[in-house]
Amino acid sequence: MTSSFAPALNSAAALDAADPLASYREHFVHSDSREILSYLDGNSLGRPLAATAGKMKEFIDGEWGTRLIRSWDESWMQEPFRVGDRLGEVVLGAAPGQTVVADSTSVMLYKLLRAAMTGRPGRDEIIVDRENFPSDRFLVEGVAAELGTTIRWIEPDPAGGVSADEVRQVVGPRTAVVLLSHVAYRSGFLADAPAITKIVHDAGALVLWDLCHSVGSVPLQLDAWGVDLAVGCTYKYLNGGPGAPAFAYVRSDLQRQLQQPLWGWMGARDPFGMTAEYRPADDMRRFLTGTPPILAMQPLKHMLDLIAEAGIEAIREKSVLLTERAITLYDEILAPLGVELTSPRDCAQRGSHVTIDHPCFRKVVALLWERGVVPDFRAPRGLRIGLSPLSTSFAEIEAGIAAIRDALNEVLRG
Amino acid sequence: MTSSFAPALNSAAALDAADPLASYREHFVHSDSREILSYLDGNSLGRPLAATAGKMKEFIDGEWGTRLIRSWDESWMQEPFRVGDRLGEVVLGAAPGQTVVADSTSVMLYKLLRAAMTGRPGRDEIIVDRENFPSDRFLVEGVAAELGTTIRWIEPDPAGGVSADEVRQVVGPRTAVVLLSHVAYRSGFLADAPAITKIVHDAGALVLWDLCHSVGSVPLQLDAWGVDLAVGCTYKYLNGGPGAPAFAYVRSDLQRQLQQPLWGWMGARDPFGMTAEYRPADDMRRFLTGTPPILAMQPLKHMLDLIAEAGIEAIREKSVLLTERAITLYDEILAPLGVELTSPRDCAQRGSHVTIDHPCFRKVVALLWERGVVPDFRAPRGLRIGLSPLSTSFAEIEAGIAAIRDALNEVLRG
Repeated sequence: MTSSFAPALNSAAALDAADPLASYREHFVHSDSREILSYLDGNSLGRPLAATAGKMKEFIDGEWGTRLIRSWDESWMQEPFRVGDRLGEVVLGAAPGQTVVADSTSVMLYKLLRAAMTGRPGRDEIIVDRENFPSDRFLVEGVAAELGTTIRWIEPDPAGGVSADEVRQVVGPRTAVVLLSHVAYRSGFLADAPAITKIVHDAGALVLWDLCHSVGSVPLQLDAWGVDLAVGCTYKYLNGGPGAPAFAYVRSDLQRQLQQPLWGWMGARDPFGMTAEYRPADDMRRFLTGTPPILAMQPLKHMLDLIAEAGIEAIREKSVLLTERAITLYDEILAPLGVELTSPRDCAQRGSHVTIDHPCFRKVVALLWERGVVPDFRAPRGLRIGLSPLSTSFAEIEAGIAAIRDALNEVLRG
Repeated sequence: MTSSFAPALNSAAALDAADPLASYREHFVHSDSREILSYLDGNSLGRPLAATAGKMKEFIDGEWGTRLIRSWDESWMQEPFRVGDRLGEVVLGAAPGQTVVADSTSVMLYKLLRAAMTGRPGRDEIIVDRENFPSDRFLVEGVAAELGTTIRWIEPDPAGGVSADEVRQVVGPRTAVVLLSHVAYRSGFLADAPAITKIVHDAGALVLWDLCHSVGSVPLQLDAWGVDLAVGCTYKYLNGGPGAPAFAYVRSDLQRQLQQPLWGWMGARDPFGMTAEYRPADDMRRFLTGTPPILAMQPLKHMLDLIAEAGIEAIREKSVLLTERAITLYDEILAPLGVELTSPRDCAQRGSHVTIDHPCFRKVVALLWERGVVPDFRAPRGLRIGLSPLSTSFAEIEAGIAAIRDALNEVLRG
């Protein structure tokens, strides 16, 4: 580390000392390991909690190993809804009975898109934006191909995101559903969800929010905002582990109107009735299909307890400080090297990650990974600095930005 | 336990002493716990391995906690296919490149059904049987409703299963796909998969086998039988844990012809290319949709190692002995009480569970569960005795049948 960097390091120490959530880092595996100098990808895969392995062992020996199949009756049939309700309470701003945990985000997106497209005569258009996450765009493409739906594309500034004005310009009497990401996976742009939801409703359409990059780091008020449908993943800021299940939210008064096309036994009114015909449940259960991933939804529960204790507002406050700090250091250290900032400078328009661009970043990220500095790379030239509030220190940001500078200088020197 | 039962107990001891796989029971959690006198539901939820919790801790601390997001590059992108290939090798009789682990069985069934229905002009019928598992029937109903497909129902004997003759009578030039369970969830009937597959092929249709109730207990030769499509779950005889992911098999020469409708990023040719349009991968990857359940597929791997070591043929031999023993004891002890046998007496037509029927079994099973004897109940009057070969002893069967007798007598006495 060069001497010119010393003042910034001192400042990180001060920021960490003043951080009311600093002690939460101790709850995560290897938070002070020398192998991981700086983990800057909690927006892609959250770290495991130190308690996770022990809690899994308890589950394996107890609910699974001792209660065995009896656990389905005693607890697991309700688990996807119980964990869903807890998500609603702690991070979604959703009253009970509207959230379920199951499947992957993409599978849930398919189900809700299809459900939103049926039984709404004259409404045959889906609105989505070109900068949305590939799965979201691909699923819309696939649904449009099978149903003959028209796709209306919003073309946002790649360095920004979808504004309320852009939505107002495209939504209309033929719109069935508008699918947007609350926080853009690349730029980190934070959309104005309440305003956009209102605009979509004024046009008589439904809104489907992808919350993958906001849930657990940005406060959500799905009920208060009047959101119709939402999905999200639990392996980013909710630390559920690689490939942890998704969640889906369907506003209570919409549930009976919407039917998803994957008719599995767990979505039936009476799953163990072994009935001759499918009759969907009246409530959120109808959005289930197969046997829900009970084992895989266990780690998530412990992170929700931690978030509830810290409070989502305090988490957002730290998130803003972390991203502000990353941008300050970018301005000082990386901008002079020709690196561009892709994320919004206004923290009110930004989630919990900061993306910077440079043509050499593919090579730079490969070098960084060898050195225990772990952001991620998003083609063609983006480096994402993900700042998971409960597990990331200001020192990690400084060490990370210094390492990016050093690696970039090495690559530039050839 | 009454004295009249003593001879049978001696016999169980002899059978357990002679069992070459007896020592495998020690690999499972609580196999000798007093809390679980007799676990007879491994066909519904396999017991955890004693090693599972430790292996999960290793995974959480290592691949997840230390390698973090780097594990996607280093290992996880291939994990659904690597575990799939291992399934192919150990239990499916499938060469590499044809099996993937992801989603739930029902979601995978939907994808394969839809894929089998597209691009096959003039073939607009699905064949399925009335005794098939509810999800299978419901999914066919749903697909038929959305595509305008005709369903041709086979009506098998509820106490048996679908015969090759029954299939021959219904399959024809308009059949797109025949969906059958290899082992029936209720009766335990083992269908003649190679003969039926040939009959379906002779009619120019595709066969889709649901292997949930056979995989891990009955030897499979998907490649040799010429099977087109198959799905199965990993939480029964593969001990993957509650809600563990499903697997799908698609014969290699069919993969490029079939397209499933859930277009997610993980099914794309270049998942991290973040491309403008969806282009499905050329291989099994195209049957993926969202981020695959990496954490949830870990426990399964250890059970596959155990099955590989024991050998699936030896497992089947023990399975046959276990179900024979259950039927012998049924004849001696339960038939005199008016209990009916629903499963085939011919072991060549039987999987690894035995179903018996009595109008009082709902109450009986509730009593048994309190006593640490755990079969399951299938409405309206079935009690399933599931005999997972590596974790079940002959003593457990005897204790279980004695307990069923005692509980039934109590209920009958009121």
